[in-house]
Amino acid sequence: MTEVTKIILDCDPGYDDAVALLLAAGDPRIELLAVTTVAGNQSIEKVTGNARRILRAVGREDIPVAAGAIRPLVRGGAAFCPEIHGESGLDGTTLPEATTPVDPRAAAQLIVDTVMREPEGTVTLVPTGPLTNIALAARLEPRIVGRVKEVVLMGGGCKIGNVKPFAEFNIEFDPEAAYVVFNEAWKVTMVGLDLTYQARADEAVRARARAIATKPGQLLADILDAFARNYKKKSHFDAPPVHDPCAVAAVIDRSIVKCVPVPIDVELRGALTYGMTVADFRRPAPEGCRTFAAVELDQPRFWDMVIEAVERIGDPLKDVEY
Amino acid sequence: MTEVTKIILDCDPGYDDAVALLLAAGDPRIELLAVTTVAGNQSIEKVTGNARRILRAVGREDIPVAAGAIRPLVRGGAAFCPEIHGESGLDGTTLPEATTPVDPRAAAQLIVDTVMREPEGTVTLVPTGPLTNIALAARLEPRIVGRVKEVVLMGGGCKIGNVKPFAEFNIEFDPEAAYVVFNEAWKVTMVGLDLTYQARADEAVRARARAIATKPGQLLADILDAFARNYKKKSHFDAPPVHDPCAVAAVIDRSIVKCVPVPIDVELRGALTYGMTVADFRRPAPEGCRTFAAVELDQPRFWDMVIEAVERIGDPLKDVEY
Amino acid sequence: MTEVTKIILDCDPGYDDAVALLLAAGDPRIELLAVTTVAGNQSIEKVTGNARRILRAVGREDIPVAAGAIRPLVRGGAAFCPEIHGESGLDGTTLPEATTPVDPRAAAQLIVDTVMREPEGTVTLVPTGPLTNIALAARLEPRIVGRVKEVVLMGGGCKIGNVKPFAEFNIEFDPEAAYVVFNEAWKVTMVGLDLTYQARADEAVRARARAIATKPGQLLADILDAFARNYKKKSHFDAPPVHDPCAVAAVIDRSIVKCVPVPIDVELRGALTYGMTVADFRRPAPEGCRTFAAVELDQPRFWDMVIEAVERIGDPLKDVEY
Amino acid sequence: MTEVTKIILDCDPGYDDAVALLLAAGDPRIELLAVTTVAGNQSIEKVTGNARRILRAVGREDIPVAAGAIRPLVRGGAAFCPEIHGESGLDGTTLPEATTPVDPRAAAQLIVDTVMREPEGTVTLVPTGPLTNIALAARLEPRIVGRVKEVVLMGGGCKIGNVKPFAEFNIEFDPEAAYVVFNEAWKVTMVGLDLTYQARADEAVRARARAIATKPGQLLADILDAFARNYKKKSHFDAPPVHDPCAVAAVIDRSIVKCVPVPIDVELRGALTYGMTVADFRRPAPEGCRTFAAVELDQPRFWDMVIEAVERIGDPLKDVEY
Repeated sequence: MTEVTKIILDCDPGYDDAVALLLAAGDPRIELLAVTTVAGNQSIEKVTGNARRILRAVGREDIPVAAGAIRPLVRGGAAFCPEIHGESGLDGTTLPEATTPVDPRAAAQLIVDTVMREPEGTVTLVPTGPLTNIALAARLEPRIVGRVKEVVLMGGGCKIGNVKPFAEFNIEFDPEAAYVVFNEAWKVTMVGLDLTYQARADEAVRARARAIATKPGQLLADILDAFARNYKKKSHFDAPPVHDPCAVAAVIDRSIVKCVPVPIDVELRGALTYGMTVADFRRPAPEGCRTFAAVELDQPRFWDMVIEAVERIGDPLKDVEY
Repeated sequence: MTEVTKIILDCDPGYDDAVALLLAAGDPRIELLAVTTVAGNQSIEKVTGNARRILRAVGREDIPVAAGAIRPLVRGGAAFCPEIHGESGLDGTTLPEATTPVDPRAAAQLIVDTVMREPEGTVTLVPTGPLTNIALAARLEPRIVGRVKEVVLMGGGCKIGNVKPFAEFNIEFDPEAAYVVFNEAWKVTMVGLDLTYQARADEAVRARARAIATKPGQLLADILDAFARNYKKKSHFDAPPVHDPCAVAAVIDRSIVKCVPVPIDVELRGALTYGMTVADFRRPAPEGCRTFAAVELDQPRFWDMVIEAVERIGDPLKDVEY
Repeated sequence: MTEVTKIILDCDPGYDDAVALLLAAGDPRIELLAVTTVAGNQSIEKVTGNARRILRAVGREDIPVAAGAIRPLVRGGAAFCPEIHGESGLDGTTLPEATTPVDPRAAAQLIVDTVMREPEGTVTLVPTGPLTNIALAARLEPRIVGRVKEVVLMGGGCKIGNVKPFAEFNIEFDPEAAYVVFNEAWKVTMVGLDLTYQARADEAVRARARAIATKPGQLLADILDAFARNYKKKSHFDAPPVHDPCAVAAVIDRSIVKCVPVPIDVELRGALTYGMTVADFRRPAPEGCRTFAAVELDQPRFWDMVIEAVERIGDPLKDVEY
Repeated sequence: MTEVTKIILDCDPGYDDAVALLLAAGDPRIELLAVTTVAGNQSIEKVTGNARRILRAVGREDIPVAAGAIRPLVRGGAAFCPEIHGESGLDGTTLPEATTPVDPRAAAQLIVDTVMREPEGTVTLVPTGPLTNIALAARLEPRIVGRVKEVVLMGGGCKIGNVKPFAEFNIEFDPEAAYVVFNEAWKVTMVGLDLTYQARADEAVRARARAIATKPGQLLADILDAFARNYKKKSHFDAPPVHDPCAVAAVIDRSIVKCVPVPIDVELRGALTYGMTVADFRRPAPEGCRTFAAVELDQPRFWDMVIEAVERIGDPLKDVEY
């Protein structure tokens, strides 16, 4: 019997968040309790709209969507990322309008309500954007920390950065929120750049996406092609690293990544390293270490998982013009 | 006709918070919409219990009380203040048990709900503890910033500190929350140590308190006497500065304090000055400056106001044994 | 019998440094062992030239002059101050060319050599610019710390700043050097802005300067008039605070200032307070406190001292055209 | 014809500094102009004594030795490293007494004098300890920056640390000095932990040392054996990384290491990363990048070089009892 994991996906779509949504919606081993959104790749209005349209496109408007933080917890001056994700966050894709209302609660409140409602130890939080909502939820209702099964997040890195030499976008966008999340007493698995730089959507992968003869298949193909173009322009990568679905994949089947326990903290004071996830590999992790870094990806199985999930979604809006 | 101001008192009683509650409950120019609590002088359990017992003691259990943050927004290592406020937060006083339930919402959520419910521009936030709940509320629902009338807070100082050379307890307990509050686009009036060190409860004041022949009068007297003893022991002050009611007094009648517009920001990086409120007095404040510092107190009128408020409370639990 | 104090004046003339030089050269209670220069108000070339020309103007080219640091010890990005001191550092004054060579040693080395040569406990260091040379000297030869009589510096402030809300130019120009100086085990007297803002050269003072019928008198008058014009333009002060001679005056006659012992440290990490001198007035200074703040100036006696010193210089270059 | 490079070795012996001295003294491609010492592995008295005794042991007391900084440039609280280098800095070795006097100049002054005396572009600085002396020299006489051929230092690391997750002992001992050195306009080659962790003195290497039938050979063997014991105890390494001679080796023959140009800066503000060398590998180094990281060591040739250098020293004190 397949084990099913209940997750809340907290995201800022964004191309790779969109793939994370497709994977979470299509893989039978995930029960997607809620989608919450956070400003990051684009503004809260845009990423919330994107999340809702994707859920309609995959026939899952039953899943509640709540809008979250419009800005980082403390720091000022964080900027969105149109150069990678476009002005809309999903430039170059075609999506239907959403037809159901946004949940009236703040994202943090929806997270709190969901975790407090579900049985203890059953809900996994999967943030693939800045950690603002998760930090707010932990401060709003501290009891969620003991009730969450674990946090599996896309962000950070062990020995690598993108927006700074040693800092990654999601963490650097809201370092104080990340500090809160890494320092709470729950299990945290960091799916960082070291891992996600292994999840490259090369031409072979993109061809597989294009071969899925459904609207969601078309969406995946459009996303990967646009992401590839922008990464090529911005970072000279031949194939874009598709970060966010790696976190969902690690929840679906932990064997798809190699994880190591390692103490991880977040630098809040550095002039050069503000927002760095500082992983301490100098010696074996101490007993009871509750932070983990994903360091190796089984890339073939990862892409199989993504493609199969999108195929399984089918073509729910086949007859709807959009 | 008396102008009445609607306030939410966000506090951590604590002796001087208790006086702030008495003043807010007894002065007819205040409509106390809600009381919210925050860890600071003591733990959230203790300060919430204290707030509720005081409200019962003054016959105002109709006012909703919600418990808030158990710890600072980001910083670790903040410590309560039993050396000034005692193990209970109100050692040396006698209070009845509370009889009504705590509001089920988090303090930040109660603040949000209240501000969004009341007409725009009518609610004044009066924090007299660490600013954690206020910062959380502003992040949870950013629209409150434009709806609040103003924030009048006890905390900080212009040229003076207590827990550090230039940092005051409430701000230093949660500097990141203070940074959020001072940097949001609402009007903020800082009632800091420069002002509150003028609100000394000397023997004459304490004698006036003792002369009020009601249980609330007895409570005020006990509070001031205990506060005086502890301040004497800890800081060699002959008369304790009764900080928190100064903020309430400034809301009741702005003419009781002299306020000056001055840019104020909060230091988040200093090794010696983490948690300092940095007020820039080098030149006249720019047009549209929305931060103000209270710098001079009309001490006689202040104490008259406090004494009269407690007298006006009367003796609602006269016949209840406690 | 008059007590004479041996000093090394470490300066960056600059108008008020020039007045400090005039005072040190003209007052019989000072034995000026050496003049060292440091980049601050202007570049090292300009301030060294200015120091040498002033010494010639007062007939004291026997005093060795050594050029020091061209930039701060660690921090980058410090900028000179032409808006107050002009492009030359002494715009609007007329000075003769220097005729003797600059000492070949670095300023820090001259300080070390002088302190090691003179009897222990006899040399007072009087820095009136950034503290770069003093810090370098202490690191180059740690034994000077125990041999110096004391350091009496112009810089910093207790509750006031100029280049930042709580930071003064000399300290903020080189905070790390200041940190070294305040944390070494010698006696340090801070003559900061709280004190020097009392040393205003108002019209009456400037008239007294103009009345001295010598070339040095003319120099003083020109300096004060130019300083007044620039301060008026930049800071709206009606009379400029003539900072640097206050430190020399405090060495000549300590009774001209009121000094209090107070722990003083320098903030090296603050985002808003980098370069702040943090004086801790919360309680009486501990036994053995070796840092002092000058807080009150006897203004009439101060200006008498300056005027008399310039008069005593006489007119050594009366017959030289310049 | 062999190219000979003139170097000043600035060190804190310390076991691996001692090996660097042996290599510099024995290899014909090095002209050792001076040895300067700095507090780091042990106190200035101890490391200076060690350096002088080693020079006597290898028959090179003609080389001037000057003692330098007793402590870091700015930071307080740096601690020596007896757990790796022993109380003497060279516990477990036997050395003769030095017979010639220490140079009377401060290390920084000797560096300045040597660089200013030698032809421009001919002197390489080789610091293998904290960078305090080098920073002091650059501040004392800024012209050395344009005259030095390059700085090849042992310290820091690209993706690795020892005293902190991302900081190495020499840099973390004096981060401000390192900041000065990496930010001056000279060529800097960082021989950091990434490189030196490849220079392991395993049993085979140690056997080769023991096979050299001279007193210097015995010294090398004793050093490596003691170093191995202490590293095993402290860090569970089976073979100790012999850091410091790697920098000398890179000067002798650059082809022994692979170097890449990469922007490197030093973190001075981090709570977790103070003293981190931040190398930016996100994209190819810009044109004119003047900082380089050594990333790969030709280990067999390295050890051949060390062994041959010690053999070439011969047995100058063969007949002296010590």
